[in-house]
Amino acid sequence: MKDKKNTSASLPTLRRLPRYIHVLKRLKLKNTEYVSATTIAEELEIESIQVRKDLSVTGIVGKPKIGFELDELIISIQEFLNWNKQEDAYLIGVGGLGKAIVSYENFKNYGLNIVAVFDNNKKKIGKKINGLEILPLDKLYDFGERKNVKIGVITTPASAAQEVCDKLIINGVKAIWNFSPVSLKAPKDIIIESVHLSQSLAVLTHKLSMKVIEK
Amino acid sequence: MKDKKNTSASLPTLRRLPRYIHVLKRLKLKNTEYVSATTIAEELEIESIQVRKDLSVTGIVGKPKIGFELDELIISIQEFLNWNKQEDAYLIGVGGLGKAIVSYENFKNYGLNIVAVFDNNKKKIGKKINGLEILPLDKLYDFGERKNVKIGVITTPASAAQEVCDKLIINGVKAIWNFSPVSLKAPKDIIIESVHLSQSLAVLTHKLSMKVIEK
Repeated sequence: MKDKKNTSASLPTLRRLPRYIHVLKRLKLKNTEYVSATTIAEELEIESIQVRKDLSVTGIVGKPKIGFELDELIISIQEFLNWNKQEDAYLIGVGGLGKAIVSYENFKNYGLNIVAVFDNNKKKIGKKINGLEILPLDKLYDFGERKNVKIGVITTPASAAQEVCDKLIINGVKAIWNFSPVSLKAPKDIIIESVHLSQSLAVLTHKLSMKVIEK
Repeated sequence: MKDKKNTSASLPTLRRLPRYIHVLKRLKLKNTEYVSATTIAEELEIESIQVRKDLSVTGIVGKPKIGFELDELIISIQEFLNWNKQEDAYLIGVGGLGKAIVSYENFKNYGLNIVAVFDNNKKKIGKKINGLEILPLDKLYDFGERKNVKIGVITTPASAAQEVCDKLIINGVKAIWNFSPVSLKAPKDIIIESVHLSQSLAVLTHKLSMKVIEK
């Protein structure tokens, strides 16, 4: 396995790599030791040449006719995604979605470790969620000086999202995982990755309405 | 406003339409009455020709030099996405994410009305969440006969997702909103829209690791 950690990859490749990990972990439960790109491709219904190309960015080389050693392949992808380490993160906005994200232990396997949660609702401040005390947003400044937190997760309502984003950046955050329905404005060197659930739902409900008309 | 409800749209257009609604609702709070495609485009940092093209699929026609009447435009997009009506939905898997989705009242504005929740964990069955009693999965059959539910939301762990998907389809569900990390297999006429949070996180953590190396 070569070290290609300084290689970047296309967005579609980055999005497919976690799906490979899911398939590989499932195969591991069945005591599989070696896996071919073709097997992964069939499982996910994509082209095997695509799988080979994607895996090559991680630097791993398979054995001819045998394929990849399963554990080595998982580790190789995880290292490429930086999931072998955990990156500390703040979460702001402890509503339903915020609570779900803080409580979802699995994100630790995806490199995300939430170390502090914030909310401006006085009824929430001081309460604990998953062992973390909910802090007022002003406390970001104290944390910013002591800690080296690079990721901010925004689960606030739309109206608060941009202000929260600005405050996170002032406090040293370099990457924002945005769940609010807002298009956040930030300097170019800040990474913004948004999950817009309403967009996903739009595809679903529109396609369904088309279907009903068809019949 | 023409009725073009039987027109379909590209996936990128469908994903942009909810963002337009968010912008329009914010402008409405500022008592704006008319809005141009250019204003929307600037707000979202996309090309105005793109906005004009997207809005045209809904059948709305703006007034030259004035733009679109705000309320009419919102309604036009909502009708196109089928968000003027609510579609009944089942949710299966009442973990952290499932709870968050059931509790998020806003999805009703996006056309989604969860009418029943299911889980196979005996400790959860019988408890209530947002006024809905958590039912065992077997009860799907009873519901399927009485109701006409077209959408299933899957928030189960990976290991249960495919089985749940199969059961939903047997019971008449036509569209699946999948939050599990599995690539679900289903007949071609079934709509599957997946939200893979780990994929989004992969983009974030990898880009961040690249950034750290750069410096």
